Amino acid sequence: MPNDLVAALDIGGTKIAGALVDGDGRLLVRTQRPTPARESAARMSDAVDDVLRELTTAPDWDRVRAVGIGSAGPVDAKAGTVSPVNIPVWRDHPLVAGVRDRVGALPVSLIGDGPAIAAAEHWQGAARGRADALCMVVSTGVGGGLVLGGVLHSGPTGNAGHIGHISVDMDGELCPCGGHGCVETIASGTNIARHALAAGWQPGPDGDATAAGVAAAARAGDLLARAAFARAARALAAGIAATAALVEIEIAVIGGGVARAGDVLFTPLRAELTRYATLPYVQGLEIAPATTGTDAGLVGAAAAGWRALGAEVA
Amino acid sequence: MPNDLVAALDIGGTKIAGALVDGDGRLLVRTQRPTPARESAARMSDAVDDVLRELTTAPDWDRVRAVGIGSAGPVDAKAGTVSPVNIPVWRDHPLVAGVRDRVGALPVSLIGDGPAIAAAEHWQGAARGRADALCMVVSTGVGGGLVLGGVLHSGPTGNAGHIGHISVDMDGELCPCGGHGCVETIASGTNIARHALAAGWQPGPDGDATAAGVAAAARAGDLLARAAFARAARALAAGIAATAALVEIEIAVIGGGVARAGDVLFTPLRAELTRYATLPYVQGLEIAPATTGTDAGLVGAAAAGWRALGAEVA
Repeated sequence: MPNDLVAALDIGGTKIAGALVDGDGRLLVRTQRPTPARESAARMSDAVDDVLRELTTAPDWDRVRAVGIGSAGPVDAKAGTVSPVNIPVWRDHPLVAGVRDRVGALPVSLIGDGPAIAAAEHWQGAARGRADALCMVVSTGVGGGLVLGGVLHSGPTGNAGHIGHISVDMDGELCPCGGHGCVETIASGTNIARHALAAGWQPGPDGDATAAGVAAAARAGDLLARAAFARAARALAAGIAATAALVEIEIAVIGGGVARAGDVLFTPLRAELTRYATLPYVQGLEIAPATTGTDAGLVGAAAAGWRALGAEVA
Repeated sequence: MPNDLVAALDIGGTKIAGALVDGDGRLLVRTQRPTPARESAARMSDAVDDVLRELTTAPDWDRVRAVGIGSAGPVDAKAGTVSPVNIPVWRDHPLVAGVRDRVGALPVSLIGDGPAIAAAEHWQGAARGRADALCMVVSTGVGGGLVLGGVLHSGPTGNAGHIGHISVDMDGELCPCGGHGCVETIASGTNIARHALAAGWQPGPDGDATAAGVAAAARAGDLLARAAFARAARALAAGIAATAALVEIEIAVIGGGVARAGDVLFTPLRAELTRYATLPYVQGLEIAPATTGTDAGLVGAAAAGWRALGAEVA
């Protein structure tokens, strides 16, 4: 119905956000709390409850027909639980049951934050109108989600598209996930900075030793900084090409802090892609920056809620 | 209708096979010709026509309701053309139009040979009843196909699931496909034998320098032969784990000549998988040998034909 709304929750390592979202993806009510990720499960639940209270007491709440949740992963959509790597006080936490207790009989959908970003980019962003897309976030970590055949493919447990933890260097470094040579070990912002420093790169006068500092140095022509981005671009290209070979995608959309480096990332990435995306059916693959911005997680969570209502949003 | 049949064509680098297949996957009429892969496009078309003539003149032909084609890739299901790597005389060959000319008004479906194997294993083999599966062939090359959400995911062009050409070693060897460190460069039978010989392995008294010879030596305890299989197993494990992280699969089914090595391949493969399939939602991933045998390509092509008729076969 045109007046219907969906409630969206975005559970991340630094903030818990909530919103009421209409069928065009507009945020009508929006609220957030800091994530007490390392305090206690009870404090976490209090923060979620605070956000939900603001939403359920909003004048528009009676128009809400479904709830969509996007959460830092891994999630388990079958069990309705979450075990976010960056929220150690939650392991197999029954998030869906907790939200149900607060929202009555509404349908509640849960997906990972990667699929949520993909849903947002497909509904409102750079993947709009694309049948087959990979949407990624390259930030302190690397995540992603897939749209296949015009529909979000979040997988049975809600985690599909997790390109950060596929190996592109099978004899490579041990990843905190337990894997070896994962894309994230090479291409995340944290690891770009770590590799640059290990190679002898030195931060500029502002002392910024993060990936943003490396990006600024690369833009100014620093060869060690450029090499760190080139290696990250290679890992991303290998991972994107692998995804294209496996499921056939026409576009890879990249957001997150590292993507804000712009050409410093995208120029070597497009060059490296020609070294991996070589089969005829993947050669036309496009690379584009994400456009949905900081509320992408909420928009994507809302899309999952709309999808549960049968709307063709993502 | 219970009496309906589907005509199946399996176009490979060594043989062109055809069959009439019922709704239970039984082959009623079966014929084949050698593939004149390096002679001429006209000779190729003659061979396909010969196979089709045997089928269309069979007494049961009037029960046929659709045609399914599985072809060595790459294929282009949108254009109805094929450009098989191992059939150099066919490039952008309009296979579907040629078959249509011979079969009248029947619907004709085209998929790659990897998706065809996956359809066969899902319909009749080790992936039966599984909602999400990767089915692979490890032979002179490495190919594969995906079943997602209970349905064959062959992708817009019919090539999806091509695990042989994803990179698991981004700084690795140049692959004939143009990529670097593809699974196939490490794990195909041809490359297992090549790597074993390069490492100093020597064939036994029978002079068998193929992957089968390496497998026999590995079974007898030869350390260089075992190392070649261990490295192939590692590449396969990294590729399978990447697939699981990207799309969520519950089982990986492996057939083809190299899989016939049995424990020599499967034991190190299961061990290596624990080093790559580490995220909670991929830890339960099973590995199983394929069971559909030499007619898998025909069975899978038939499944594509049945699918076009709305049957829930793959």
